[in-house]
Amino acid sequence: MSNKLLVVGTIAYDAIETPFGKAEHILGGAATYIAFAASIFNIKIGLVSVIGDDFNSNDLKLLTNRDIDVSGVEIVKGGKTFFWSGKYHININKRDTLDTQLNVLENFDPKVPDNWSTSNILLLGNLHPAVQLSALKQMKVKPDLIILDSMNFWMDNFRSILDDVISKIDVLCINDEEALQLTGQNSIRNAADAIQVLGPKYVIIKKGEHGAMLFHRDEIFVVPALPLKKVKDPTGAGDSFAGGFAGFLAQHSNTSFESMKTALVYASAMASFTVEEFGTESLQTVNKLNLKERLKEIENLTKFKSQQINLNEL
Amino acid sequence: MSNKLLVVGTIAYDAIETPFGKAEHILGGAATYIAFAASIFNIKIGLVSVIGDDFNSNDLKLLTNRDIDVSGVEIVKGGKTFFWSGKYHININKRDTLDTQLNVLENFDPKVPDNWSTSNILLLGNLHPAVQLSALKQMKVKPDLIILDSMNFWMDNFRSILDDVISKIDVLCINDEEALQLTGQNSIRNAADAIQVLGPKYVIIKKGEHGAMLFHRDEIFVVPALPLKKVKDPTGAGDSFAGGFAGFLAQHSNTSFESMKTALVYASAMASFTVEEFGTESLQTVNKLNLKERLKEIENLTKFKSQQINLNEL
Repeated sequence: MSNKLLVVGTIAYDAIETPFGKAEHILGGAATYIAFAASIFNIKIGLVSVIGDDFNSNDLKLLTNRDIDVSGVEIVKGGKTFFWSGKYHININKRDTLDTQLNVLENFDPKVPDNWSTSNILLLGNLHPAVQLSALKQMKVKPDLIILDSMNFWMDNFRSILDDVISKIDVLCINDEEALQLTGQNSIRNAADAIQVLGPKYVIIKKGEHGAMLFHRDEIFVVPALPLKKVKDPTGAGDSFAGGFAGFLAQHSNTSFESMKTALVYASAMASFTVEEFGTESLQTVNKLNLKERLKEIENLTKFKSQQINLNEL
Repeated sequence: MSNKLLVVGTIAYDAIETPFGKAEHILGGAATYIAFAASIFNIKIGLVSVIGDDFNSNDLKLLTNRDIDVSGVEIVKGGKTFFWSGKYHININKRDTLDTQLNVLENFDPKVPDNWSTSNILLLGNLHPAVQLSALKQMKVKPDLIILDSMNFWMDNFRSILDDVISKIDVLCINDEEALQLTGQNSIRNAADAIQVLGPKYVIIKKGEHGAMLFHRDEIFVVPALPLKKVKDPTGAGDSFAGGFAGFLAQHSNTSFESMKTALVYASAMASFTVEEFGTESLQTVNKLNLKERLKEIENLTKFKSQQINLNEL
């Protein structure tokens, strides 16, 4: 297995304000965070996205420096790169979107390069479900695993095509509120069950600072988020999470539930790096030693001596 | 060590409406849930509380049947038992208080029976901090561990006396929003650090369906809540959690951080039983076999094969 991960998603410029700082024009977008996070693994990563010719060539270099193949990134002449602006509250788990300029994203027609159409894992980042579907249909060999991230905007406005994509994937990755909205259920567990009826055999529920959960039939796994002293900018946390998850599975060449559990711990670690600095800053510099330490920290969060549980003495 | 747990708190009648049912007049109150949850352990439990002479003797029997000593429960002649009424939203994690009638609680002057003033563990359930302080001062031997539960109402209205109690305890048990409010911090981790400056060496942050966290200096432990298919009534979940925590520690005769981690798993298990049925119903019938199964389920939620994490191959 050649460990190829294909990422389809947005590349953006973001303007972000949080209680801890401000950035006017920094590299962002779901695909960017996903690819950076996945690039810590020994795998091949291809990107399918679109940018304008305003895009800074140095920013493209940040990606290629991490061995991310950008041959599937279309550059639209005279076009402007997707722009998003958001402001976080004092409670940094809440944010308002101040501005969204789709720009070149508006007419994005994804093209999966031939050599990437046989990737082992396909990760469809959060964007228009029609784009996700188009990319999915271009795969010449059915991937071992198709992971899809989505959000409420697409549920509200493009439900029918979103349902179509969801029916064709293996892992749906959404946040807790969106899972309830998507299914009309009122508990996460029931929502996860309902989603599995729609197609995906695995459901990842992202809960921000509360971590994430993985569901598959009657099996459930919970990974905590590392309780950080410093959260500077939560932007891209969910995308980094998905990138860490997919990256681990691509390298591990094993998509069993057991393997996904470990992948979720890596995912949580990658997300924890992202939120400690602005934008993609920490993802660009994080190394394997940092990752190793953080994995240990996350493992220690939930490890306890079960031999202390002696119910006979009760 | 004689494994004595003294519980100070309210006994109440509750009227509860949830999306899954309604009860007009059922046994409730923090001390009731705490004592029921703790009574699954082989320990001695004493209750200090107050009720009116309207209190049903059968309800008192429910407590004594579980070997809970009610000699510290004052019965006020002509008085009415504390009454609380609440209605839960479709999102069952939210509720509105419809009515609170303090009744005999208004002039409650707790009296710790002599034989309970040397208890190993003192659990001060959520109620007026002046009552908590009075009970604490009646202890003739300093308990191995003093655990305190509180809520925003006391922070808003009796901050100074609450601060006094908090300075004298070992474990503060509050929910996440209240921890932020109490400390003025904007992250749980920073709030937990700030609370440790106020006195308690240990901080438990309750997060409802997201589980709970235990903090002590740089050590952190996270226990998930079991993702249940059926949540009928969340009333008393936090109290059952505290009762399970204190009960385990009382039996285990060990208040180290390691021991507290395991206690937190028991706490989560006891809370999970409570919310599955109305009021104290499931706590009255749960047995050690049920508990054993549930502990295993909670353990499985977070267990993963860390040997899969081979960073050298990265």
